[in-house]
Amino acid sequence: MEKIAVFPGSFDPVTIGHESIVLRAIPLFDKIVVAVGVNADKTGFFPVEKRVEWLKKVFENYPSVEIKTYEGLTVDFCRKNNIGFILRGLRTSADFEFERSIGQINKQLYPEIENVFLLTTPEHTALNSSIVRDIIRNNGDATPFVPKQVKFS
Amino acid sequence: MEKIAVFPGSFDPVTIGHESIVLRAIPLFDKIVVAVGVNADKTGFFPVEKRVEWLKKVFENYPSVEIKTYEGLTVDFCRKNNIGFILRGLRTSADFEFERSIGQINKQLYPEIENVFLLTTPEHTALNSSIVRDIIRNNGDATPFVPKQVKFS
Amino acid sequence: MEKIAVFPGSFDPVTIGHESIVLRAIPLFDKIVVAVGVNADKTGFFPVEKRVEWLKKVFENYPSVEIKTYEGLTVDFCRKNNIGFILRGLRTSADFEFERSIGQINKQLYPEIENVFLLTTPEHTALNSSIVRDIIRNNGDATPFVPKQVKFS
Amino acid sequence: MEKIAVFPGSFDPVTIGHESIVLRAIPLFDKIVVAVGVNADKTGFFPVEKRVEWLKKVFENYPSVEIKTYEGLTVDFCRKNNIGFILRGLRTSADFEFERSIGQINKQLYPEIENVFLLTTPEHTALNSSIVRDIIRNNGDATPFVPKQVKFS
Amino acid sequence: MEKIAVFPGSFDPVTIGHESIVLRAIPLFDKIVVAVGVNADKTGFFPVEKRVEWLKKVFENYPSVEIKTYEGLTVDFCRKNNIGFILRGLRTSADFEFERSIGQINKQLYPEIENVFLLTTPEHTALNSSIVRDIIRNNGDATPFVPKQVKFS
Amino acid sequence: MEKIAVFPGSFDPVTIGHESIVLRAIPLFDKIVVAVGVNADKTGFFPVEKRVEWLKKVFENYPSVEIKTYEGLTVDFCRKNNIGFILRGLRTSADFEFERSIGQINKQLYPEIENVFLLTTPEHTALNSSIVRDIIRNNGDATPFVPKQVKFS
Repeated sequence: MEKIAVFPGSFDPVTIGHESIVLRAIPLFDKIVVAVGVNADKTGFFPVEKRVEWLKKVFENYPSVEIKTYEGLTVDFCRKNNIGFILRGLRTSADFEFERSIGQINKQLYPEIENVFLLTTPEHTALNSSIVRDIIRNNGDATPFVPKQVKFS
Repeated sequence: MEKIAVFPGSFDPVTIGHESIVLRAIPLFDKIVVAVGVNADKTGFFPVEKRVEWLKKVFENYPSVEIKTYEGLTVDFCRKNNIGFILRGLRTSADFEFERSIGQINKQLYPEIENVFLLTTPEHTALNSSIVRDIIRNNGDATPFVPKQVKFS
Repeated sequence: MEKIAVFPGSFDPVTIGHESIVLRAIPLFDKIVVAVGVNADKTGFFPVEKRVEWLKKVFENYPSVEIKTYEGLTVDFCRKNNIGFILRGLRTSADFEFERSIGQINKQLYPEIENVFLLTTPEHTALNSSIVRDIIRNNGDATPFVPKQVKFS
Repeated sequence: MEKIAVFPGSFDPVTIGHESIVLRAIPLFDKIVVAVGVNADKTGFFPVEKRVEWLKKVFENYPSVEIKTYEGLTVDFCRKNNIGFILRGLRTSADFEFERSIGQINKQLYPEIENVFLLTTPEHTALNSSIVRDIIRNNGDATPFVPKQVKFS
Repeated sequence: MEKIAVFPGSFDPVTIGHESIVLRAIPLFDKIVVAVGVNADKTGFFPVEKRVEWLKKVFENYPSVEIKTYEGLTVDFCRKNNIGFILRGLRTSADFEFERSIGQINKQLYPEIENVFLLTTPEHTALNSSIVRDIIRNNGDATPFVPKQVKFS
Repeated sequence: MEKIAVFPGSFDPVTIGHESIVLRAIPLFDKIVVAVGVNADKTGFFPVEKRVEWLKKVFENYPSVEIKTYEGLTVDFCRKNNIGFILRGLRTSADFEFERSIGQINKQLYPEIENVFLLTTPEHTALNSSIVRDIIRNNGDATPFVPKQVKFS
């Protein structure tokens, strides 16, 4: 059976933290679906199309990484796509508590799923998409925090 | 003197986690007031009337449990209703830090009050009303997470 | 049925933090057993007899508070003494994680037991018996941290 | 070289927790700039002018404390004003995780900056501006939580 | 390249928590080495031979699980055995902080290694070998906490 | 008045984490006393003389840094040496909770003292002396974790 993992998120925008988690997870899985969660009621900071375009460029040299969008519950997306693993990065203990809650609920909703966690590398611990957006909003330089394929202008 | 506790919350909707805390607290108190906090500026996901109706059904066989609504500060509600204890469930350490802050402020505002905490059972640790609302919003099945008296349709 | 709680610990020595938890719990229970855990393999800093003597003096004006010693598991002590509640104070989130573990295991070993937690008051948050022992070992003045009935000399 | 620190925040309103941190930091620095972050898109609970006025009164007897407003990133404000230190108070471990993230990102954006933390005193641990606003919104008495120079009516 | 993971620990004794992590990790790896760390200076509660014997029985029907003992650093064991992944279970946020430290140091000592974490299931969150030993020491019944293949008498 | 800080610890051995905290704190204080706590009952891994010798070499080019040893409570050392600040590094939230406790007790024992915290840099977050000792005990290479002036052979 194929080992497929989903790496779900809003990727608004993708950061070097996300990039590092996916690249390190590649040896573990046959396929990794980077799945951009789309919420009809909530527009993001960057349009979904832009976010997907950036992700495609970031992972274009990794054939086992696929970019998709999805609506609805992550577990429903997994069920429909025959995905057995949810991949997540852990940065802080606040992160951990949040991920544990989501992970346990997901397992109750879909017992076949397994949550797999990698550690964020120390130099990315402080980083998330919301900080990147904040820097951009305040006219700061966010390029050190995103993959080189992401161009803001 | 009668031992009365309040179990305050928005109960939007009541979960099996809330139910479990109240049922286990019954032997400790003469009366438990499950108090639905109403905020004039903020409508919930479910109407207050629905939330109260569900709570009444969930606890209808427990004569020492009473359902009320209130506006304003929890401590003011306690003062007016002669309530000496605030009952809360603890799930995670993030929960604990939040509850400790609120509890300490409440005690400064109303020194006669005592905060009493029970542990959420392990299988309910991940659960809260916001997760239930999220599942419903995404057309998932939230019935395993709410008492059997709660009907969403 | 009588509502009896145990407040277990090593009380080596009792602190003003312990004292405050017990005093605030008195209205909640018909009886509180302050139970000094005795470990045949491990002698404490103060002899058990001294610790019990101090506790007796601290609570001598509170008829519903009883001092006992016990060996073995706390839940076995509860079973033998018809105790339905384990009372504990919570100071920090590290405390909480520890107490939650012990509490959940105790409930698995003895499902009839209920864990009840009170908050340590802010000015006692930093305090525990080990800090008191450390101050004494280093010839510091530990009297502000213990009830006035505890005399070290 | 002059040792200048910024104490950034929204101070909506200033609390006795903020006041205590600044007063205790005075001996450490030649100058402390209490900097009210202004966000064009987000109006606060109290107008910026009011918040600044209160801060000026609270620290009027401390010549090394200066009140300013700023827009944009805190590190950009530091760069323009020759500020070498960011001063922050730590209350809880949730606080710590948040401050560590911000602090590490700030250091990446401006490596010359150093983050300096003082501990909130135990009796202020539960306090923040959002709790003060909540009490006011619910017609409670928030005066014990703000410096005596802050008048709400 | 073969995907080999080590699941290191003292397993003194193996618990149902350990068992659950390994069983759920089987689909992820070609081989899982359950490695009992042996410390010349420190004898455990149960002899190493007994711990290994129990582990062998627990996993005897899983051909991809192998039981070994090792001395020295886990990363040195990995290097010698061509192991690319360290598998660990996460129970609480205290666990997480501990594991993150060890994981980051291991990655500095041996950059080729990747740490992979699974979540402990909610009902095992409170459980660890030290609690099991404590129950045994106090003549309690620890059998609900260990795999059925572990016999204490 | 001279601004003197103590940086207390066992420094068994000094790490690059310690070194980084002291170097970054130099601009804040007129003098920093790196104080090696000596405990008559407990010998360390490295002899006190060795630990002091290493510290002296590490900071020999920084005239405002002084190395001392002390017995007894840190606050008593501060009182005798006219020290107004205790300097500490913060790595994780577990660290923070521990330091807050110690800091609050120290302030109760000696109200004139102020605790000042700097953040450990991300790449040193996982590091402490105990990990260094563990690596040495297991014949690993600990040199990347200690200042270049520390030689183990």
